[in-house]
Amino acid sequence: MNVATVEINEVAPRDGFQIEAAFVPTQEKIRLIDALSRTGVARIEATSFTSPRAIPNLHDAEAVMNTIERLPGVGYVALVPNEKGAERALACRADELNLVLSASDSHGLANLRMTAAQSLEGFANIVSLTRGSDVFVNAAISTAFGCPFEGSVSTLRVLTLVERLLALGIQGVSLCDTTGVADPRQVAERCEAVLSRWPWLPLTLHFHDTRGMGLANALAAWQSGVTRFDAALGGLGGCPYAPGASGNICSEDLVHLFARMGVDTGVDLERLIDASKTLPGLIGHETPGQVVKAGPADRRYPQPAGVGR
Amino acid sequence: MNVATVEINEVAPRDGFQIEAAFVPTQEKIRLIDALSRTGVARIEATSFTSPRAIPNLHDAEAVMNTIERLPGVGYVALVPNEKGAERALACRADELNLVLSASDSHGLANLRMTAAQSLEGFANIVSLTRGSDVFVNAAISTAFGCPFEGSVSTLRVLTLVERLLALGIQGVSLCDTTGVADPRQVAERCEAVLSRWPWLPLTLHFHDTRGMGLANALAAWQSGVTRFDAALGGLGGCPYAPGASGNICSEDLVHLFARMGVDTGVDLERLIDASKTLPGLIGHETPGQVVKAGPADRRYPQPAGVGR
Repeated sequence: MNVATVEINEVAPRDGFQIEAAFVPTQEKIRLIDALSRTGVARIEATSFTSPRAIPNLHDAEAVMNTIERLPGVGYVALVPNEKGAERALACRADELNLVLSASDSHGLANLRMTAAQSLEGFANIVSLTRGSDVFVNAAISTAFGCPFEGSVSTLRVLTLVERLLALGIQGVSLCDTTGVADPRQVAERCEAVLSRWPWLPLTLHFHDTRGMGLANALAAWQSGVTRFDAALGGLGGCPYAPGASGNICSEDLVHLFARMGVDTGVDLERLIDASKTLPGLIGHETPGQVVKAGPADRRYPQPAGVGR
Repeated sequence: MNVATVEINEVAPRDGFQIEAAFVPTQEKIRLIDALSRTGVARIEATSFTSPRAIPNLHDAEAVMNTIERLPGVGYVALVPNEKGAERALACRADELNLVLSASDSHGLANLRMTAAQSLEGFANIVSLTRGSDVFVNAAISTAFGCPFEGSVSTLRVLTLVERLLALGIQGVSLCDTTGVADPRQVAERCEAVLSRWPWLPLTLHFHDTRGMGLANALAAWQSGVTRFDAALGGLGGCPYAPGASGNICSEDLVHLFARMGVDTGVDLERLIDASKTLPGLIGHETPGQVVKAGPADRRYPQPAGVGR
């Protein structure tokens, strides 16, 4: 199945800024999110309601969520690790809560101090907090394609977790390749396994480009019928276990890829590139994105002078 | 068609070193090629027999070709722009000549000072030079997916050129995305058009990662039945029209991708990574390759201390 329309979830303000060495000032975060709201992305993961001790860079979650401009047609998502975070996010009128658990317990314990079973226990209470509201509840399964500590994570493990999440009333699921280990064949198999069982499920794929496979994996997921992708402006993000490696797949590179293929993302590529060009000023270094350096593929150059036919 | 075995043509010594700011000493080129011979790549494009004025970095083509160790099972390829270059390459016992022409005349005139028709005229003489020998003659079609001056290049144009090349007795053809403008849908369509007409043709795909689409394009070509890929160690190479952008698709990243997918390249990834790690010492800067920074996807990390189950 090759689908003609996909949705882009912009995650740089959360997955990108959380690991930067420098704190991005609150006003700059708000300015960037407001610019992103005008690009045509479907959703913006604006912040994370975590403990400020765990992620100091996002200690301004309330200020960000309460000040950004809310444009119709754009969903403003908050990552939420626990019930406390969910309460904070709901108080700030998040459109969507993105709960997070790890497919592998060694990663869950290291990253969230919870096994998957412990995470699932907490999710029931969070879902009940949103009952009767319009808030969409998504759950992101980290290490869904492999774990940096344990190695392989089985398709059965992922299917079991999806089933439990749906039984809890969670409405959407993301499969996250947290450390960039997925390959296109595995992605196709795993996406098809999920979508053949739950064809109606809003399934999002979240890839990191740690080993250069990110866009090939996005292509494989799209070929398997996936229509929702996380991506980070400039390719921000990264992996504490692979210093120097690339981060999330790059939003503008992904949008450019789909545009070249005739797949509609609804995103204005030029506006996205313009937003990306502001990143080095915010974070103090270049980004891994390619299109921002090379320009779109339809860019033309003058033929060198002195060359006759 | 998904094929289980592919061949890697290593092009860094030619396509990579030719555009580096620094001249790589002849002995270092030879040492690198000898190391590459031991990695399991099918072919090594070792140099280009061009005018030393056009490409000063490869003025040592004879010294390189005459000194490298020739391992059985590895093809030593020389790029050849004209009859003079072919004579030099044959005198140095090249196993394969890689002729080059541009699909778009504006690019041909800028890069080779020849239209495609003029290039084809010269190829007849080159083919006659190799008659009765074991030398394989390949022709690489530059700008086969688009031109930085003219824009689009039609499938019909590419098919016409392939037909003319084969009529001249040329044995293999490469489709080159010289400036990194191809997208996976276009790649699939173009590869299928060529292979449906000439299913027996040794067809090589040559991608640049200028806009981050390189490995996604390689995946699309492989899905279309392509089994031969050019790639450059470390992702060397580049495009004069996109300063700062990535170069050729990276050999070790491509081999890693295929290995993860269960596709056999015959290449020892660890040896390839070891060879890639020597590049910054030769060229004076880091390379765009990702796997060399992050390590292969099966790399394991110790679980952080202090995290109990």
